[in-house]
Amino acid sequence: MNDKKLKLGIPKGSLQDYTLKMFKAAGFDIEVPERRYFLKIDDPEMECFLLRPQEIPKYVEKGKLDLGISGDDWILESKAKVIEVCDLKYAKQEIKKVKWVLAVPEDSSIKSVQDLEGKTIATEAVNLTKDYLRKNKVKAKVEFSWGTTEVKPPRFTDAICDITETGVSLRAHNLRILDTLLISSTKLITNKKAWQDKWKKEKIKDIALLLQGAVKGEEVVNLMMHVPGLKLNRALKALPKLKSPTIKKIAGENWYDVIINCKEKEVRELIPKLKRMGCQGIIEYPISKIVT
Amino acid sequence: MNDKKLKLGIPKGSLQDYTLKMFKAAGFDIEVPERRYFLKIDDPEMECFLLRPQEIPKYVEKGKLDLGISGDDWILESKAKVIEVCDLKYAKQEIKKVKWVLAVPEDSSIKSVQDLEGKTIATEAVNLTKDYLRKNKVKAKVEFSWGTTEVKPPRFTDAICDITETGVSLRAHNLRILDTLLISSTKLITNKKAWQDKWKKEKIKDIALLLQGAVKGEEVVNLMMHVPGLKLNRALKALPKLKSPTIKKIAGENWYDVIINCKEKEVRELIPKLKRMGCQGIIEYPISKIVT
Amino acid sequence: MNDKKLKLGIPKGSLQDYTLKMFKAAGFDIEVPERRYFLKIDDPEMECFLLRPQEIPKYVEKGKLDLGISGDDWILESKAKVIEVCDLKYAKQEIKKVKWVLAVPEDSSIKSVQDLEGKTIATEAVNLTKDYLRKNKVKAKVEFSWGTTEVKPPRFTDAICDITETGVSLRAHNLRILDTLLISSTKLITNKKAWQDKWKKEKIKDIALLLQGAVKGEEVVNLMMHVPGLKLNRALKALPKLKSPTIKKIAGENWYDVIINCKEKEVRELIPKLKRMGCQGIIEYPISKIVT
Amino acid sequence: MNDKKLKLGIPKGSLQDYTLKMFKAAGFDIEVPERRYFLKIDDPEMECFLLRPQEIPKYVEKGKLDLGISGDDWILESKAKVIEVCDLKYAKQEIKKVKWVLAVPEDSSIKSVQDLEGKTIATEAVNLTKDYLRKNKVKAKVEFSWGTTEVKPPRFTDAICDITETGVSLRAHNLRILDTLLISSTKLITNKKAWQDKWKKEKIKDIALLLQGAVKGEEVVNLMMHVPGLKLNRALKALPKLKSPTIKKIAGENWYDVIINCKEKEVRELIPKLKRMGCQGIIEYPISKIVT
Amino acid sequence: MNDKKLKLGIPKGSLQDYTLKMFKAAGFDIEVPERRYFLKIDDPEMECFLLRPQEIPKYVEKGKLDLGISGDDWILESKAKVIEVCDLKYAKQEIKKVKWVLAVPEDSSIKSVQDLEGKTIATEAVNLTKDYLRKNKVKAKVEFSWGTTEVKPPRFTDAICDITETGVSLRAHNLRILDTLLISSTKLITNKKAWQDKWKKEKIKDIALLLQGAVKGEEVVNLMMHVPGLKLNRALKALPKLKSPTIKKIAGENWYDVIINCKEKEVRELIPKLKRMGCQGIIEYPISKIVT
Amino acid sequence: MNDKKLKLGIPKGSLQDYTLKMFKAAGFDIEVPERRYFLKIDDPEMECFLLRPQEIPKYVEKGKLDLGISGDDWILESKAKVIEVCDLKYAKQEIKKVKWVLAVPEDSSIKSVQDLEGKTIATEAVNLTKDYLRKNKVKAKVEFSWGTTEVKPPRFTDAICDITETGVSLRAHNLRILDTLLISSTKLITNKKAWQDKWKKEKIKDIALLLQGAVKGEEVVNLMMHVPGLKLNRALKALPKLKSPTIKKIAGENWYDVIINCKEKEVRELIPKLKRMGCQGIIEYPISKIVT
Repeated sequence: MNDKKLKLGIPKGSLQDYTLKMFKAAGFDIEVPERRYFLKIDDPEMECFLLRPQEIPKYVEKGKLDLGISGDDWILESKAKVIEVCDLKYAKQEIKKVKWVLAVPEDSSIKSVQDLEGKTIATEAVNLTKDYLRKNKVKAKVEFSWGTTEVKPPRFTDAICDITETGVSLRAHNLRILDTLLISSTKLITNKKAWQDKWKKEKIKDIALLLQGAVKGEEVVNLMMHVPGLKLNRALKALPKLKSPTIKKIAGENWYDVIINCKEKEVRELIPKLKRMGCQGIIEYPISKIVT
Repeated sequence: MNDKKLKLGIPKGSLQDYTLKMFKAAGFDIEVPERRYFLKIDDPEMECFLLRPQEIPKYVEKGKLDLGISGDDWILESKAKVIEVCDLKYAKQEIKKVKWVLAVPEDSSIKSVQDLEGKTIATEAVNLTKDYLRKNKVKAKVEFSWGTTEVKPPRFTDAICDITETGVSLRAHNLRILDTLLISSTKLITNKKAWQDKWKKEKIKDIALLLQGAVKGEEVVNLMMHVPGLKLNRALKALPKLKSPTIKKIAGENWYDVIINCKEKEVRELIPKLKRMGCQGIIEYPISKIVT
Repeated sequence: MNDKKLKLGIPKGSLQDYTLKMFKAAGFDIEVPERRYFLKIDDPEMECFLLRPQEIPKYVEKGKLDLGISGDDWILESKAKVIEVCDLKYAKQEIKKVKWVLAVPEDSSIKSVQDLEGKTIATEAVNLTKDYLRKNKVKAKVEFSWGTTEVKPPRFTDAICDITETGVSLRAHNLRILDTLLISSTKLITNKKAWQDKWKKEKIKDIALLLQGAVKGEEVVNLMMHVPGLKLNRALKALPKLKSPTIKKIAGENWYDVIINCKEKEVRELIPKLKRMGCQGIIEYPISKIVT
Repeated sequence: MNDKKLKLGIPKGSLQDYTLKMFKAAGFDIEVPERRYFLKIDDPEMECFLLRPQEIPKYVEKGKLDLGISGDDWILESKAKVIEVCDLKYAKQEIKKVKWVLAVPEDSSIKSVQDLEGKTIATEAVNLTKDYLRKNKVKAKVEFSWGTTEVKPPRFTDAICDITETGVSLRAHNLRILDTLLISSTKLITNKKAWQDKWKKEKIKDIALLLQGAVKGEEVVNLMMHVPGLKLNRALKALPKLKSPTIKKIAGENWYDVIINCKEKEVRELIPKLKRMGCQGIIEYPISKIVT
Repeated sequence: MNDKKLKLGIPKGSLQDYTLKMFKAAGFDIEVPERRYFLKIDDPEMECFLLRPQEIPKYVEKGKLDLGISGDDWILESKAKVIEVCDLKYAKQEIKKVKWVLAVPEDSSIKSVQDLEGKTIATEAVNLTKDYLRKNKVKAKVEFSWGTTEVKPPRFTDAICDITETGVSLRAHNLRILDTLLISSTKLITNKKAWQDKWKKEKIKDIALLLQGAVKGEEVVNLMMHVPGLKLNRALKALPKLKSPTIKKIAGENWYDVIINCKEKEVRELIPKLKRMGCQGIIEYPISKIVT
Repeated sequence: MNDKKLKLGIPKGSLQDYTLKMFKAAGFDIEVPERRYFLKIDDPEMECFLLRPQEIPKYVEKGKLDLGISGDDWILESKAKVIEVCDLKYAKQEIKKVKWVLAVPEDSSIKSVQDLEGKTIATEAVNLTKDYLRKNKVKAKVEFSWGTTEVKPPRFTDAICDITETGVSLRAHNLRILDTLLISSTKLITNKKAWQDKWKKEKIKDIALLLQGAVKGEEVVNLMMHVPGLKLNRALKALPKLKSPTIKKIAGENWYDVIINCKEKEVRELIPKLKRMGCQGIIEYPISKIVT
């Protein structure tokens, strides 16, 4: 059993840094050597490869990898049959989402998906685009694009289906968004065979538990405050309804110590509210991991 | 009320990174898009503009902005009538202070402010310099400088009033500091009209509360220790006098758990002292925000 | 006479690299020391200062500098009375021109200069803008802008007058160009006093001669070709009319060697034409300087 | 005819800089705007697109582009029917050649192409690899690789067919080169339709003439020397046999001026030889373009 | 006593960033001014110099410095008689260790240390290498190498003794590791005289305490969990044996709150185990310093 | 003879780029692979190593290298017995000279070399410094310094002997230059044995000839002008006295074509002078190599 190794695929490119950071937060140090795609990981039971996210789902499906990280987009695009262990949605990234959009030239006569009938669409995600067209009952030609997709309409194609974060590149090429196909999120995936191996399944579940604990640790904080006795009920009502707080009376005073874990985003509204009620000594502590 | 927006001015330049970092610590994510000065903020009730700190005070005064961040220097220089909501003094920056100094060539005959009588001073902060001269009852000509101010004495001007952090640039141009006019600190400012609008005032106060909580969270830490019963009084005397610590007897032992919040700078002297008294298990925890 | 020094102002910023490059091409090495604005020049008769292009015209006017490099824009803006020694128009920069444009929000009701009546315009070049308005008989308020000018319409101002090269930044801020005020070019300037000093005038004229020789050397090439005797007349007609070429009969053959200097841009059309006529051995040589 | 435009495809990636440099040397300035793939060219008769070299051959074949630059590799891979106008082989790049190689793990039992029978090969150039196998009468599975190809053997594939310049990356992944499939060079390509259009054909031929003139100008230099009369014959014999040199007797002396164009690489051996013969005043001039 | 200063040497180069980071974590801000090796420290009782780690041990021995940071390697190499105050082993750096290795060309006949008899070894650490040879009873010539040591075998030397982290550079020069001489770790060192000065010794011990507290704070975390009463004993057995945890019954429920400090590396296995036992609300908090 | 190889040492560090550039100009392409010190050279008769300039003289002396590039400073310092083939003084570098200087603290009582008697001097060039002291009949202790030499006076040493280009770093450490020991220039060196080998000597002489031709080609230009017959004598007198110019009467006109090679630095004064005499069509051509 000891020389069994869990094969892990790390996605090269835009997901790479976040993936490595979350593994580190989960307790695994992964080092990317200069000019090498075999990664070093400080767990002798694992082996680690840097691969394009487009290929990871297929390699997981075929069992070349036991575990991989990839986006929804490439899992769907590759039509790989994989088991989704968990989502690694990064709560803080809400302003910067990866979206796949259909876009046409600003002055194009194409105003809705239906207008794409008979047209040509260039994209790096051919299957994703075809599935979308099928769902919309539109027949159009979908061509694989190797890159610089934004330059193609109208000379090389009628429309494109491309990834965008801020829309700046689309605007710079005078393109208009017609529809959003997918907002992609990051997944931890495995295959049936690994899932049926008791040792691997347990190891994968442990990794997932730690990764999710670290992801959640990024969005949750620990809030501690002194609440005057007269305001205790009002304060408790103001707190998020998630989990019962820890309440402790301060000996010899009509004050209570209240401790709660809540989302960092809620704190923005919660602290001023509590302060106005008369709460004192409100302290927010960071959390590294949280497993509930 | 819902479509009301609070207009916020973020200072471009040397204050920009710290300002964005403190807003993030306060719970607001602000994104600077490539090549754009309209910033994205994850609060639908706010709009965010990147502007030069020189202009923010005037725009706040005129009501073009409801809220802004700028330095003391530019508030004074612009003579804008604004309300100072709070100071955002960054405690850790003590080694790197922004100072406005009067400087002259090393071999200049000007040895004191009085020697500037009748001379010419080049500066980016004309009003600041004039006010200073008036206070010192010296009459001198103050000229606006667009930059490279250090190269000007003695050929283009007799003296300069310029910003300095480390003094390296002054020394490289053979300049001697004559006097310090101002050590600038960062302020959150608003105007009367916004302050009279109930919704805006409350929102501004909440933002100030969170920003100050975050600023303070950077300099305060949470210190926990086990104190032997015999040393409890001596230990308590050693602690900073700010706020009474939490003291709890450990059941069945003549030891006490003492918890206190104190400045990170004090910890440097406090920990060795406590250790010498026989305290054990001294742990310092980071704090994200503190609102007292 | 020997310790007389010609004081030269080099513009910091966008013109800096090109200016230093052209001085080098003219035969003068100027070194920019780290963190210093006193530049080193390998001519003991000169002293060299790095200054903002906004200030150079005024310093030349006042005689603090004998010679300076600045753009048309800042010469006009500063209203400095200077003598323009020569133009340093860089022929190869034709795709990348520095333009001052009036711009308004894309959806603004302002469609022509006349619509600016009573409006506010923010700009770094206040005088330039005022002069333009006067010429167009429009009355509008012109406000000095410290920077990030593109973010200002429509919240902080109605229109802006700003510098643009590619228009990308204007488009990123949803601005529309209303009119072009000025296409700026680079000038070598001096003042009356220096011009009346015999030694200085001669030195300035020599520098101008060398700089212009170097500028021209960048756009002119030397073209040499073998022309068959029967095509000599046709070939000569095809050549640019500037200057008579050098023609030499090749001994013992009905072929001629023709040498001509022409603009590099003309070569693009000339070479294919000559080749089709039957010319052979067409060679283009680079030129470092040309003084006609 | 005037609004006819020649559509040109510039390859994004490793060929991009050299391509733009050679167009500049040929007399065409092409600017790559920030974040845009529509390029600016200073010829109103042309339009310019930045596209992946993988796609340019197909777009040229279909007539979406009239003219394109791509490598042999992608022309073959795409099986596009295009007309090769000329080769743009860069003589100076001889140490840095782009090679497509078959590679296997260092300790693999695969020692020759024949051993690949029944194996799997990962590659970005599927057709190139299949053609090579067919020629070698080997049946193997060829899989498309999206990247990080070097990490794949032996876990994900048996062998790879990948691009290499220095071999460093292959060595870092413990791979051994089995065979070289192709040493790629850069081509200027067009299609039948453009070639049949008189105006386009002429324009394309002119561009090719100028590009080749510029490419050749990089490797050819002009050598001028004084040869003593007694050594004239020996010196002439030493010169490369390409083209007859220009020989001129120096009036009143038994010395000759000899001028010749030769490859820069030959100069390395030629100059010492000539010097030893007693030649003097040997001068090498750079050439910008040469069209013979 | 007040104007006494503790002289501290900070190692320039690979240890510099980590050293400055740990001093910051310990509560001391040290600033490295541009182009200066006198560092600024926010403690008026200290003076700080940036020096090569090779020289720090000798300067500490001679009393030019009271305190210094250097590696084992240079302390041994310099044969300086210093007092090792404490080790600053950075627990997280386990994948990236600094090793001194003996290496020979891959195809060298040297297979063991004994084969070095009579050979030449190039190294930056001459004494280290000589000591190693002496210990192994091998006589070989050791030559000082100024750098690019890897290029030397076999032409310039038979073997080398060099520092390596990842082995990439050794492999790139076709070198094989023969033996490892030393795995270096970072030390805080002082000298006898400073150690006999009461004020200095106390200050040094305080600094060591804080540095070690910070180092340990990087590897230890605080883990808090709710344990069901029935599993309390099993959970306590699972916890690391270091220090007794804090256990508190939750009022009115058969659940316990258990708090423990443990190594971050242990958490990776601990959390999944605790979770499987039925523990809930497992939270990991970061620690800044820990002094036990 | 064919498999004989000339071993060449290229200096790593400050001389590296210029050395590679001059070899390229001489006709030899040398490539520095990533992370490797074996360099590639496009001459099969040579082998190329990247080594510290401190070590090259010794390796040349011992015959490990046949040919090397190093500075005067390290040749003297290493006391290596080498044959200086030629100087590679780079004429354009006149403003940026590498000087070895003796420096002391600004406020030191050491005012002349004699005051160094009995003092300590830290330096990377121990022999150079000792030789200098001997010549000046001063006895002082010279200590090897590994770097950051400027920080050492007065705490760690009394004076230093260090390399300086601009003096900025000396000034930043408050040091005053006492004397200049050496202005270093770059040399091509070989050893007796290689010099006695006929093939090697010839090859080395050829390389030296080409390198010097390229070095000279950088400082010499070709100047061509039309001179009016009446001014011919005056013009000829103005020309540098080096080499007789080529003079040719223009057929049918009282004008002469005069061609001369002269130093680029002279051109600065020559062109204006010639222009004033009435010369026309003055053209300066660049030269790649010149061998006289």
